[in-house]
Amino acid sequence: MQPVHGGNLAWAAAIAGCSSDAILDFSASINPLGPPQSAIAAIQSAISQLSSYPDPNYGELRTALAQVHQLPPEWILPGNGSADLLTWAGWDLSELAATYLVTPAFGDYWRALKAFGAKVVGCPLDLEGVGEKEDKGTRGQGEWEKVPPSLYPPLTPRSSLLAPSKCGLLLNNPHNPTGRLWQREELLPYLEQFALVVVDEAFMDFLPPAAEQSLTPLVQKYPNLVILRSLTKFYSLPGLRLGYAIAHPARLNRWLARRDPWAVNTLAVAAAIAVLKDTEFQRQTWAWLPPTRSRLEQELSQIPGLQPLPSTANFLLVESERPSSALQQQLLKYERILIRDCLSFSELGDRYFRVAVRSTTENERLIKALWQITT
Amino acid sequence: MQPVHGGNLAWAAAIAGCSSDAILDFSASINPLGPPQSAIAAIQSAISQLSSYPDPNYGELRTALAQVHQLPPEWILPGNGSADLLTWAGWDLSELAATYLVTPAFGDYWRALKAFGAKVVGCPLDLEGVGEKEDKGTRGQGEWEKVPPSLYPPLTPRSSLLAPSKCGLLLNNPHNPTGRLWQREELLPYLEQFALVVVDEAFMDFLPPAAEQSLTPLVQKYPNLVILRSLTKFYSLPGLRLGYAIAHPARLNRWLARRDPWAVNTLAVAAAIAVLKDTEFQRQTWAWLPPTRSRLEQELSQIPGLQPLPSTANFLLVESERPSSALQQQLLKYERILIRDCLSFSELGDRYFRVAVRSTTENERLIKALWQITT
Repeated sequence: MQPVHGGNLAWAAAIAGCSSDAILDFSASINPLGPPQSAIAAIQSAISQLSSYPDPNYGELRTALAQVHQLPPEWILPGNGSADLLTWAGWDLSELAATYLVTPAFGDYWRALKAFGAKVVGCPLDLEGVGEKEDKGTRGQGEWEKVPPSLYPPLTPRSSLLAPSKCGLLLNNPHNPTGRLWQREELLPYLEQFALVVVDEAFMDFLPPAAEQSLTPLVQKYPNLVILRSLTKFYSLPGLRLGYAIAHPARLNRWLARRDPWAVNTLAVAAAIAVLKDTEFQRQTWAWLPPTRSRLEQELSQIPGLQPLPSTANFLLVESERPSSALQQQLLKYERILIRDCLSFSELGDRYFRVAVRSTTENERLIKALWQITT
Repeated sequence: MQPVHGGNLAWAAAIAGCSSDAILDFSASINPLGPPQSAIAAIQSAISQLSSYPDPNYGELRTALAQVHQLPPEWILPGNGSADLLTWAGWDLSELAATYLVTPAFGDYWRALKAFGAKVVGCPLDLEGVGEKEDKGTRGQGEWEKVPPSLYPPLTPRSSLLAPSKCGLLLNNPHNPTGRLWQREELLPYLEQFALVVVDEAFMDFLPPAAEQSLTPLVQKYPNLVILRSLTKFYSLPGLRLGYAIAHPARLNRWLARRDPWAVNTLAVAAAIAVLKDTEFQRQTWAWLPPTRSRLEQELSQIPGLQPLPSTANFLLVESERPSSALQQQLLKYERILIRDCLSFSELGDRYFRVAVRSTTENERLIKALWQITT
């Protein structure tokens, strides 16, 4: 069965006829510089604490996260990956008349919204004309059609029941799979208009402090704002599971009353506290990403039939003249390289694939393989 | 704030005025022989895999668990501790007219039932007359009043809406906090009568194969049966979070569609696969527990004002003439020993406390401290 998420190495290994370890994985958008040594050391050292339950209040972890975001600890709730917290955000959204979902949308959003029967109104991003080769000279990175014109038309005419004041909005920033970034100011009107705004900032930490557009500075002003964050993409620890939500304490306490008391494991707690202080690893990542992404984007754009879209995140969405599922199969079988097809994004279908930005050597392997297959 | 679960070392350390490590924890019922070396080695070795997502199908883990229980893998769903799976069992129970809950009940059952608004009918266990000192000669371990007379009276007269055929039943076997064990045959009638029976077997693995009374051999016959199991009590890994549910695949697939795709972390997967094969550790635990528990029970019963109840699990519920919360505070402040008060079990209140069976030396420390405080 075609996986609906990236990073499914067991599935890929079966097709490639090799072990999972032998797959070069461009499908999951994980920082290739990690995990940082600080995380590994913290995990090693915390193994001796596994015989005790985690602190159900997660006091030390909440304090560490609170310091990073300059918020009181009760505004932060750690979870078993941000996907765990998305479940409870999905519940809150389901209690509203509908949820406006910016599409193409990460597949797990559909899961979390369907889990509690939320009504979904799709708000398509305008992908046409973005990153077109002929425009390369005038359209810079990040020059996207703004979402508002796409977001509003589908709703107003239909029914006043679906007025934003009765509805929720769910989007990710930077957007996955396109890598588009909304400026903080672009999202402000939605905070004023929607009953609940859930912004998944799983990839925001890939932007350096001067460029990032997190809504965390606004959360104390907007009780209708929920921010989801992940620590496992930037720090390369998706196997450990660790995310957190930033929102009004009353909301987080409602979530706490629903979910199980020990959602985050002891080793994830230890790793999180360590990596948050690892400014050296953070600096390295911020120095590595922009030039490496630019080069990969440029090289992809030179391959006939491929057209990468401008991205602010650690992945690139690529429009492809050939079916991306066929490319994926060929790359797996002949090169043991896994790319992310976009079949689970119904708006994208077989015309797009997504690749992570990896190390220069690994990116070269991908480029070389794509040249061989497509020409 | 008084914790509602055992094992809250952060809270205990604050009262004792020491670090969490310095607390001797009798409040969480964790096997003192573990974690086994096999688990530690597996965790160490899996750290290198943390940059990949866990297999969302958890195929290898499900197969390993399936072999243990002689069931097809699709009858088993791993979770982030059995508390995670209890959440989804709570949802299924909430869809019924009511849930019969055997009380005193583990506090997290109330959380999972309240999360989705389940109606609860309490079914009190008859604790009177169990383990009374004057009966010691004639009442052996396990000679409890049967639950049925307690279970039925509160329901039949009230309303036909609460007939078992429209309701769920939630209990743990062995029962926590009493340690009472129901024989498989005693539970069979409930499987015939109730719309859904959820049996939490978190402590069942402490009983050796010849004595255990798991309902797993019945699960393929009863689609209305859900069994919850834990691997973190017997193998001393509560900080790692790992449990699993055994139930009809259709039910487990419904849960899968609701919850996040990567509920179990990679290190927990590796540890689980390793410990399931660790028959030596299993044998050691089964050899250690019965004599150690008997001795602790006997020594507790000699302390004036204390009366332990017979138990089949790795903990003892102790009736106390002095308020158990006061005992708990004194043990913490003067001896850095943490026992489990029973204030969160409303039926027990301040007349009972619970202690884990620990190593002989540690049990002696507890006994000595209790003698000093109570006499």
